[in-house]
Amino acid sequence: MCAQYCISFADVEKAHTNIQDFIHITPVLTSSILNQLAGRNLFFKCELFQKTGSFKIRGALNAIRGLIPATSEGKRPKAVVTHSSGNHGQALTYAAKLEGIPAYIVVPHTAPNCKKLAIQAYGASIVYCEQSDESRENVTKRIVEETEGIMIHPNQEPAVIAGQGTIALEVLNQVPLVDAVVVPVGGGGIAAGIAITVKALRPNVKVYAAEPLNADDCYQSKLKGDLTPNPYPPETIADGVKSSIGLNTWPIIRDLVDDVFTVTEDEIKYATQLVWERMKLLIEPTAGVGVAAVLSQHFQTVSPDVKNICIVLSGGNVDLSSLTWVKQAERPCQSVPI
Amino acid sequence: MCAQYCISFADVEKAHTNIQDFIHITPVLTSSILNQLAGRNLFFKCELFQKTGSFKIRGALNAIRGLIPATSEGKRPKAVVTHSSGNHGQALTYAAKLEGIPAYIVVPHTAPNCKKLAIQAYGASIVYCEQSDESRENVTKRIVEETEGIMIHPNQEPAVIAGQGTIALEVLNQVPLVDAVVVPVGGGGIAAGIAITVKALRPNVKVYAAEPLNADDCYQSKLKGDLTPNPYPPETIADGVKSSIGLNTWPIIRDLVDDVFTVTEDEIKYATQLVWERMKLLIEPTAGVGVAAVLSQHFQTVSPDVKNICIVLSGGNVDLSSLTWVKQAERPCQSVPI
Repeated sequence: MCAQYCISFADVEKAHTNIQDFIHITPVLTSSILNQLAGRNLFFKCELFQKTGSFKIRGALNAIRGLIPATSEGKRPKAVVTHSSGNHGQALTYAAKLEGIPAYIVVPHTAPNCKKLAIQAYGASIVYCEQSDESRENVTKRIVEETEGIMIHPNQEPAVIAGQGTIALEVLNQVPLVDAVVVPVGGGGIAAGIAITVKALRPNVKVYAAEPLNADDCYQSKLKGDLTPNPYPPETIADGVKSSIGLNTWPIIRDLVDDVFTVTEDEIKYATQLVWERMKLLIEPTAGVGVAAVLSQHFQTVSPDVKNICIVLSGGNVDLSSLTWVKQAERPCQSVPI
Repeated sequence: MCAQYCISFADVEKAHTNIQDFIHITPVLTSSILNQLAGRNLFFKCELFQKTGSFKIRGALNAIRGLIPATSEGKRPKAVVTHSSGNHGQALTYAAKLEGIPAYIVVPHTAPNCKKLAIQAYGASIVYCEQSDESRENVTKRIVEETEGIMIHPNQEPAVIAGQGTIALEVLNQVPLVDAVVVPVGGGGIAAGIAITVKALRPNVKVYAAEPLNADDCYQSKLKGDLTPNPYPPETIADGVKSSIGLNTWPIIRDLVDDVFTVTEDEIKYATQLVWERMKLLIEPTAGVGVAAVLSQHFQTVSPDVKNICIVLSGGNVDLSSLTWVKQAERPCQSVPI
């Protein structure tokens, strides 16, 4: 496995050592209502309670801590740079701050104000680009050169993937009887990290990826057996999984993720609201993707032997001022058991 | 103490035995950000995770289970009746269902649709009244007679007060070094139950009530040393604490609650959003009242020796379709530490 993929299980173990003193072991919660709706025993790994409000701190911190010993004594990286205005941006900034390293986040002019404010609140410098891949890459390259900084990719950086894998170490400990882990997939860092870990320690435990139908590159890639990125920028409320899987995460996902479940926007909205209303957990819609998958028609085809399912609630960074979609989602109050 | 008040600590212990198999021991969570903002160690007792989404199930269940042995064998109460369309209504319905007793909830025509739906979803019969105290009382009385049911008052019923007191049993166990418990006060059932329990077991631990300035009957009563109900129906976003304290809760609050802190609507909104954004807990504004109190200017006058403070997050039944107030509240992103 080590030779074949960009990380091995040993990298996840190292990541665990690197980051364990700086992150939360997030709790696993349950809900009898959700169990009834799914017809299985669900376990919710609450990464929304993680530092910075999402699992992304695991990978970001592992990447940054990995940089420190790699340089000669006293020569720390001058800066870290990334182009995620979402959870990875916040996580990288927080992790950089812990190590006293400046962080530069490349953000399109058009990014929502709340995201810019959040990045600034975490203490990073914002650098603006146009809303195109080309501009983003050019600006990022320029900032890396100007700051003599190091680019840390949100999901293809091996140290990031290994960091996200530490979630699975906790899950296997906290839910010893787990039969499957369900995880949202965008760039695939968390899916790949978890798959490497689960298949190394408990190969019989299934790893399922959950994906918006509107951003189904992972599903298409698995179907075709070939890396197939989203052909155009996807439109989905689950903004944390708009990225396509990439060259580093694809081989791991191809071989070690057991299945991919796609869900509609309405299913994501319904599942997210269900978790809000019934579990009182303020998850972001991206975290609702995994819940939606387990509640979907398609998931009924999964063997009943797959009884104990851990869903990773990936984050809780909701833009409260943009909750207009709440009213749109169906609210089947009466059909939900108490 | 027993002779003086409507309940004694022994009633709380009995309540604990009555209900413990049917409710959650809710977790206590912490937040380093909130600690920094308050300048104290805060412990959040998560009654939003309680069955039916609020602490009210404790009192409702204790009241209903108390009715069963009180009747001769086979003669169970024919129905239970109340006039709360909020958390007590839902809790009473749920508790009644557990015991197989029909529940009738008297609700004004004008109550929000979502509340009616929630009550129906929990399986109760809704009975409509006009929006006046007189109509509410007349209709309730009629329903009690027609159904040969038993009225269970949301906050003045002694068994309800004793049930709410069980929260304090858990808190003293879960936070052994607690110096103060902060609890929102409306009718005062939870404040009185907790005060009876805390002062029986750990008299040095402070009990603080938190109240909207717009519904400050408890504050006024303590100030004047005389029960002083709100002179008119209060306007507050914290709809769970619109009721005034009453004849049963007042003597306990008068003697055993150490202080009352009032907070403005803006403070409630800010505190509620803070818990949403930073702790990812979907509390209802009523639960934000206690958080607002601890963050208030007035609370700075509390001795620094009162270091470890447990705030009861009373519930999480938010009407998601009415979140228009979110945009109104100030969102001091940049001033909040990470």
